[in-house]
Amino acid sequence: MPYVNIKVTREGTAPGADVTTLEQKKALIKGVSDLLYEVMGKEHSRTFVVIEEVDLENWGIGGVTTSEYRKQKAKS
Amino acid sequence: MPYVNIKVTREGTAPGADVTTLEQKKALIKGVSDLLYEVMGKEHSRTFVVIEEVDLENWGIGGVTTSEYRKQKAKS
Amino acid sequence: MPYVNIKVTREGTAPGADVTTLEQKKALIKGVSDLLYEVMGKEHSRTFVVIEEVDLENWGIGGVTTSEYRKQKAKS
Amino acid sequence: MPYVNIKVTREGTAPGADVTTLEQKKALIKGVSDLLYEVMGKEHSRTFVVIEEVDLENWGIGGVTTSEYRKQKAKS
Amino acid sequence: MPYVNIKVTREGTAPGADVTTLEQKKALIKGVSDLLYEVMGKEHSRTFVVIEEVDLENWGIGGVTTSEYRKQKAKS
Amino acid sequence: MPYVNIKVTREGTAPGADVTTLEQKKALIKGVSDLLYEVMGKEHSRTFVVIEEVDLENWGIGGVTTSEYRKQKAKS
Repeated sequence: MPYVNIKVTREGTAPGADVTTLEQKKALIKGVSDLLYEVMGKEHSRTFVVIEEVDLENWGIGGVTTSEYRKQKAKS
Repeated sequence: MPYVNIKVTREGTAPGADVTTLEQKKALIKGVSDLLYEVMGKEHSRTFVVIEEVDLENWGIGGVTTSEYRKQKAKS
Repeated sequence: MPYVNIKVTREGTAPGADVTTLEQKKALIKGVSDLLYEVMGKEHSRTFVVIEEVDLENWGIGGVTTSEYRKQKAKS
Repeated sequence: MPYVNIKVTREGTAPGADVTTLEQKKALIKGVSDLLYEVMGKEHSRTFVVIEEVDLENWGIGGVTTSEYRKQKAKS
Repeated sequence: MPYVNIKVTREGTAPGADVTTLEQKKALIKGVSDLLYEVMGKEHSRTFVVIEEVDLENWGIGGVTTSEYRKQKAKS
Repeated sequence: MPYVNIKVTREGTAPGADVTTLEQKKALIKGVSDLLYEVMGKEHSRTFVVIEEVDLENWGIGGVTTSEYRKQKAKS
């Protein structure tokens, strides 16, 4: 009876996309469910996966927003 | 001092609605707060309830999105 | 397909108990599942409820731990 | 390697704003990251902060939505 | 910069084990991190995975604790 | 009405300690509550802070457990 919560920044990571695509969500859901079955024998029908997308300005890393963090990284 | 987080799929379950209605949210908040008072004596003023609605394509069950899961169920 | 996470302080609230009792946990699980069925028509078999107990010194309210908060309240 | 999740009601608390402003988000991210470094020596680059804003009608307190709760308070 | 929270019931699912084993935890962490890299290009060094084990009596399904749920299933 | 959840690895970061100390927890609770008051005007009495400690082997980073990650870092 696993529950998996995946939080990612809301942005495009597939070619031409500016958000997480439906194909990516399907791949995450299938991949996590398969993993829990393979590693722990958890039935697919008993695994919940909830994907949450978080705006770049709402996600902090290194003491700054993700947008700022990447700018700093790009410069260094 | 309880904190309750309720996650549901974002869709209509009341007649004519396509999202969770304000009346439903009020009923969930009241119901959960009453329950914590009755079962554990927790004061209403110290109970936080946070409702989060999750898009059907962001909620996985059975290794697929909720939309796909229901289609499979409908067929079987 | 709801997921409900209930966080409460780890302490006794039933007579003679010093933790949440099994009877209280059963009542919370049943109560929340019934509520989601009544308000939103969610099937019991599709509702997950996860109860987490948190030590009093790990739960802050009013800028202090719950233990300190209660001492302050008792004095005032 | 801390992970901090901050949930607040979605509303304006800065002059003229009706949501949490970017400046407030930056201040929260910096403040929490600094705190974890000062108190526990956690490196900024290893601290994630995720801010989530929750609609007033999705946040319950005192058995009612936050909007209703404030109306009750204002009257009393 | 993903954050993944995996909640499972605290019990043995590997031969001879009565809790999640270290090998299983390693496999979950590696599997989820690989998945996020493959599907979304997320760097391993930026992915946090937090595994939480929940006692059977603290996890509700079908309106009852997981222990009761399994007994009911075994009978039916 | 903020809710803040702080997750850290369960280990000592104060001199001579092998877990998060009570003093550290108090400092985190006070620091976060002060921050929310200063940045957003949130009253201390309405801010909940929940600290959760996570075993090193339950926290993944870089595709491995935190223990392994540090060993790799120490070598490189």
